[in-house]
Amino acid sequence: MPEASGGHEVGLILLAVALILLVAKLGGHVFESLGMPAVLGELLGGILLGNLTLLGLDWFEFLRHDMALEVLAEIGIIFLLFTIGLESKLSELLRVGLSSLLVAALGVIAPFFLGFFVSQWFLPEAATLVHVFIGATLCATSVGITGRVLRDIGKLDTDEARIILGAAVIDDVLGLIILAVVTGSISAANAGTTFSTDAIVFILFKALMFFVGAVVIGLFVSPHLFRIASRLRGSGMLLAAALIFCFGLSALSALIGLAPIVGAFAAGLALDEIHYQDFLDRGEHRIEHVIEPITSFMVPIFFVLMGIKVDLSTLARGDILGFAAVLTLVAVIGKQICGLGVLVPGANRLAVGLGMIPRGEVGLIFAGIGASLVLAGEPVIAPPIYSAVVFMVIVTTLVTPPVLAWSLARGDRGEKASWADQDSESG
Amino acid sequence: MPEASGGHEVGLILLAVALILLVAKLGGHVFESLGMPAVLGELLGGILLGNLTLLGLDWFEFLRHDMALEVLAEIGIIFLLFTIGLESKLSELLRVGLSSLLVAALGVIAPFFLGFFVSQWFLPEAATLVHVFIGATLCATSVGITGRVLRDIGKLDTDEARIILGAAVIDDVLGLIILAVVTGSISAANAGTTFSTDAIVFILFKALMFFVGAVVIGLFVSPHLFRIASRLRGSGMLLAAALIFCFGLSALSALIGLAPIVGAFAAGLALDEIHYQDFLDRGEHRIEHVIEPITSFMVPIFFVLMGIKVDLSTLARGDILGFAAVLTLVAVIGKQICGLGVLVPGANRLAVGLGMIPRGEVGLIFAGIGASLVLAGEPVIAPPIYSAVVFMVIVTTLVTPPVLAWSLARGDRGEKASWADQDSESG
Repeated sequence: MPEASGGHEVGLILLAVALILLVAKLGGHVFESLGMPAVLGELLGGILLGNLTLLGLDWFEFLRHDMALEVLAEIGIIFLLFTIGLESKLSELLRVGLSSLLVAALGVIAPFFLGFFVSQWFLPEAATLVHVFIGATLCATSVGITGRVLRDIGKLDTDEARIILGAAVIDDVLGLIILAVVTGSISAANAGTTFSTDAIVFILFKALMFFVGAVVIGLFVSPHLFRIASRLRGSGMLLAAALIFCFGLSALSALIGLAPIVGAFAAGLALDEIHYQDFLDRGEHRIEHVIEPITSFMVPIFFVLMGIKVDLSTLARGDILGFAAVLTLVAVIGKQICGLGVLVPGANRLAVGLGMIPRGEVGLIFAGIGASLVLAGEPVIAPPIYSAVVFMVIVTTLVTPPVLAWSLARGDRGEKASWADQDSESG
Repeated sequence: MPEASGGHEVGLILLAVALILLVAKLGGHVFESLGMPAVLGELLGGILLGNLTLLGLDWFEFLRHDMALEVLAEIGIIFLLFTIGLESKLSELLRVGLSSLLVAALGVIAPFFLGFFVSQWFLPEAATLVHVFIGATLCATSVGITGRVLRDIGKLDTDEARIILGAAVIDDVLGLIILAVVTGSISAANAGTTFSTDAIVFILFKALMFFVGAVVIGLFVSPHLFRIASRLRGSGMLLAAALIFCFGLSALSALIGLAPIVGAFAAGLALDEIHYQDFLDRGEHRIEHVIEPITSFMVPIFFVLMGIKVDLSTLARGDILGFAAVLTLVAVIGKQICGLGVLVPGANRLAVGLGMIPRGEVGLIFAGIGASLVLAGEPVIAPPIYSAVVFMVIVTTLVTPPVLAWSLARGDRGEKASWADQDSESG
């Protein structure tokens, strides 16, 4: 039976959740009032809360390292991607699939080489593999940030959104391959051998098997799962079946080395109303509707915590600011080349490029691995370089919500303007 | 920003949640089909899952000690008590308040003395304070189990339910006082001094202040909280305000040393529709409705985990079985005396007594503290005694759902029978 955690400890976690929800809703309110996505308010609210230490107030210091909040945030982002998957259609995603693939490929190649050359320029004495690692860090895309912005501004049902989401998922696989190549090359260099390509083949194989597996499970297993669930007695069976499906696929994707959110997104995509028609026939609500309160409770925990973990004091280092600024610049420019991969006529190429900018937690994971790797007795990502990468991640993450919302809204105004023209012509 | 926990670790937690939901729903189905409360199925499903090790299958061993599941379970039980509070009316609880107080007092006094004498009988060489501690362990009441059963069978809106819930909350305060007296006496005995009654006065003062504070917050602060929330832009404001209120009071009660669920229950009681009329006026659903999916997702985690943590191998000790059986017997009999405290005419006294039986996690917390206390170089609750207490906790917890449901259903049948009589008379 659950043991007593100290009342004090439990009290702190509960207080933290209450505080995070408060900050999320106040921050969201302020930014929605300014016509910007709520997620930006959650991130900035979190940054404020996490950096009160700079003003000498260290009450909230514990929030940065609390394992319990970490778990709640992790589950929160899974609910977000599951919801986004539910709100997307697989056929629509596949229709723009070639664009997604090209966008993902360009969004990896361009930032990689730009990052490589910037690193070579600023750190001439560093080993080639260091430049390679910094280039690799720029390849990441945070589907969480972009997906949330698209949802906040009600634009999930656009070709731009589909291209970005598809590209971000492909990017997760490409990122794994790059990471495997880079870390494999470093181990090989340390051991004095050469890197074998087996690892790449294995990752591609696992990823392919996962996606094929998810589709098969979606098409053949989930209808049975829901049919069985619809015959069970008890309340909340539809929700439970959906969550078992979502967590099951998320766990599977985590266990084979992909991000768990990729599995959650796949689960949302694979689930179709037709699978749970029995529940709808007896008057139950659709999964999207039932899951909304959970999403609304848990998703902000992820974004506020993401803000809390930003340590502004790492940005105060004058010596790295030049490197950090140029790295950030090429991180933004590199992803703009993605726009060239958009094959869908009339799609907003700028919005696609902007949507690929945020590195979010994915960029930090890369940097963290680099900081823990050792090449010839030195860490691959030394502390000052790590600070520069964190700077790049923070700026690319914070800049995306307003500019992406602006770019997609501008398209709307364009359309409305042309309607207005037609009206005046016909009138 | 949230750091990468190892993909493997996250994968295991997600898999565990999926598995727990599966076990909960299958267990719930089986027991609902048998006409018993779903919670019994969740507990037994958890016991099965947690004790597969006895069959040589140790895949699920990690579930017992996973901190993340612990946190999710803790939040789950908070949602349950908040929901029960929302579904109860303060005025109705106060109407039977004297009965609750008497039931709580009798439910502490009778089991205490019975436990004391049984301990004296079976452990004649042990110190008096050991008997006192064992007596104290029998005083606990698990409001989680009883509240859940009453909700499962749709009986929250009865006088019996109100008396039990009120008594269980009062019992939490009495339990704290007893614990303070017993641990204080042990420290005093170890130090060769005598126990001062200041601690008791302080606990009573804190508990009283908490309840007064909760009512004041409920009456004066929460209408303002919801009025402000209703003016903020963004989605999910009603839910967020309700959760901030619930987690805030839960945290407060944890920080002053009460169980967090007492705060959650108080928050649910204090919240009244009238406080968030603004939200209802614009067509939003009531909090009870919005919170249901979260409750349905998180509450089973608590009960299945409670089952998982039951270590059946502790019951296999022949030498303690006699002591364990008699201890369990007096734990059940002791709480039946509670029925005498029911002053409400026509109330089902047997059901009230049965509803007070489960010791649940509260009994284990007491036993755990006893095992960690040392008196004259020996633990107050030695390992074999601890096993006997665990046996008592498991049996009292598992026996309550079916017998309480049976007792309250019998009352129904009695009523129906008398209606049938009237019908035939009038017909």
